[in-house]
Amino acid sequence: MSAENEVLAGVLAGDMRAVARACRMVDERWPGHLELLAALFSRSRGSWWIGITGAPGVGKSTLTSRLVQHLRAQDQRVAVVAVDPSSPFSGGALLGDRIRMQAHWADPEVFIRSLATRGALGGLSRTTADVARVLSAWGAEVVLIETVGVGQDELEVMQVAHTTLVIQAPGAGDDLQAAKAGLLECADVFVVNKADLPGADSAAQHLRGMLALTGVTGGSGPGALAGHGAAARPSTMSEASNEGWEVPVLSCVAQRDEGIAELLGALRQHFSWLSTSATGQARRVERSRRELVALLRERLSAVLVERQESQIAQLAERVSRGELDPYAAVQTLLGSAGLV
Amino acid sequence: MSAENEVLAGVLAGDMRAVARACRMVDERWPGHLELLAALFSRSRGSWWIGITGAPGVGKSTLTSRLVQHLRAQDQRVAVVAVDPSSPFSGGALLGDRIRMQAHWADPEVFIRSLATRGALGGLSRTTADVARVLSAWGAEVVLIETVGVGQDELEVMQVAHTTLVIQAPGAGDDLQAAKAGLLECADVFVVNKADLPGADSAAQHLRGMLALTGVTGGSGPGALAGHGAAARPSTMSEASNEGWEVPVLSCVAQRDEGIAELLGALRQHFSWLSTSATGQARRVERSRRELVALLRERLSAVLVERQESQIAQLAERVSRGELDPYAAVQTLLGSAGLV
Repeated sequence: MSAENEVLAGVLAGDMRAVARACRMVDERWPGHLELLAALFSRSRGSWWIGITGAPGVGKSTLTSRLVQHLRAQDQRVAVVAVDPSSPFSGGALLGDRIRMQAHWADPEVFIRSLATRGALGGLSRTTADVARVLSAWGAEVVLIETVGVGQDELEVMQVAHTTLVIQAPGAGDDLQAAKAGLLECADVFVVNKADLPGADSAAQHLRGMLALTGVTGGSGPGALAGHGAAARPSTMSEASNEGWEVPVLSCVAQRDEGIAELLGALRQHFSWLSTSATGQARRVERSRRELVALLRERLSAVLVERQESQIAQLAERVSRGELDPYAAVQTLLGSAGLV
Repeated sequence: MSAENEVLAGVLAGDMRAVARACRMVDERWPGHLELLAALFSRSRGSWWIGITGAPGVGKSTLTSRLVQHLRAQDQRVAVVAVDPSSPFSGGALLGDRIRMQAHWADPEVFIRSLATRGALGGLSRTTADVARVLSAWGAEVVLIETVGVGQDELEVMQVAHTTLVIQAPGAGDDLQAAKAGLLECADVFVVNKADLPGADSAAQHLRGMLALTGVTGGSGPGALAGHGAAARPSTMSEASNEGWEVPVLSCVAQRDEGIAELLGALRQHFSWLSTSATGQARRVERSRRELVALLRERLSAVLVERQESQIAQLAERVSRGELDPYAAVQTLLGSAGLV
């Protein structure tokens, strides 16, 4: 049996070591990783991917850890993909999240994987999706994807998830207003963590105000989810929007396990909306389309860079000497591939 | 005269409105933007691109503003490209940097451009390079590219620059250790800003220690640049490394204009090293190669997505229903394009 097939069989058999190896194959784009992913695909269907984001200090890891705990209490198999802002060079990932989550490390029904944000051809969102797929094939019913909510790539990671939870906390600072603007459009559910601190109510109020401003009508809790009309939601990035889904703004205190059950309920309502409503279905198709385009982009450049390696090297030499502009050089490359 | 040609003529004539329009064409990937860039290329040669990065609060904008001031005192034409962590959806960029830099707005030899981090096909680093090229063709001898130092995309922006300056400040917090790990490998010059605050010396010491640990021997100032042996520098992202260049760690107080002249001197030494040493030359070729690959990737997916739009939509439909895995779907697409 080849190494790839061994890994495949191991993942399907639920062997944690094989799962770890498969994650690494995929994360590092080893030869054969696409075949592995294709073989795992049918087994990965039906899993629910939740993106969890928020600025440093809002309590992402604590909240993630609580969600794991509640999902485990409901006897669901869970995976966590922690996307760290660590080095694209080091190949390593921070241990911080692991330490904070050590309660779950001993549980054989929980798999935790840290991703370094590498400079992979396909980008971080590509790798995250593929690792989540491996973990789904292993049998994770829910995959929690935790990411820092700053940076373009991180926003793209959120688009990989079915449901995106954005965490805020009172007094998280103005530096992050800009990030918020992006997050506002990404969020399917908002939660204000540390709701026992002063300013929590006004933070929630502020969020609702911003949601109303951008046309994404925020509810005031899970109870406010049903029965409202569709909110017009401008979106330039996806054709299928959240139309018909009202983004709720909840509150919780992750540290004291308060409000987590309600939060999980709201998240589940979103997932069921995705599966049952027509707009939810359209969003799923759009998500697949985006994945195809991203995958196509990665494969294409891999194929062409491999095929035309020496031509690229020669052209780069000429461009760096100023003899040729890079735009003309790329036309030449496309021409050689019969694509112009 | 076509609109593109009018813009081209305007940029070459130094018309600021035409420059603004060209930046927008490029940033938003209008039809004809590649032809415009190709036409501008020969005029953009020789310009020096400096990437400036650091966590929020280290004083990036103040320091950038000081560098502009010193460069202007040396009678150089300067452009600033501010890459904001703002919404990929909103299409807008923050005014913060503009306000802080208002002293330079009235100067016709300074051009300031804010980029929103859009979800463009080619990615933020692609757009940044192209905007910098427009500004170089306008006649900017130095282009300062200011970016938040967190996130994969932001690290890639740094690779666009010839020289990368990483700013630290005392007490900037441990949350950013991870980002530092990536920045450590990106930096050509380090500076500890706010050197009048307690902890500045130990921050510089800490940096030098980390540089030594990773094999990038840090000097102790511009005086330490010359005469040292080459430092081995592990790098997984670029073939041509900083070998032969010792990364200096300087100090400054941007607010009080202290240490800026020395900093600019160190940055200039790096640029001249790039042009005169063999390893510097190799790095320039590698930079061109990276640009070609990035451009190729963008063009390729644009060509294929356009050509195969309806096929992609059909396949996405099937993938979302679980009838087909996305990896097989992409093989089908590549097959239709005659690429497998």
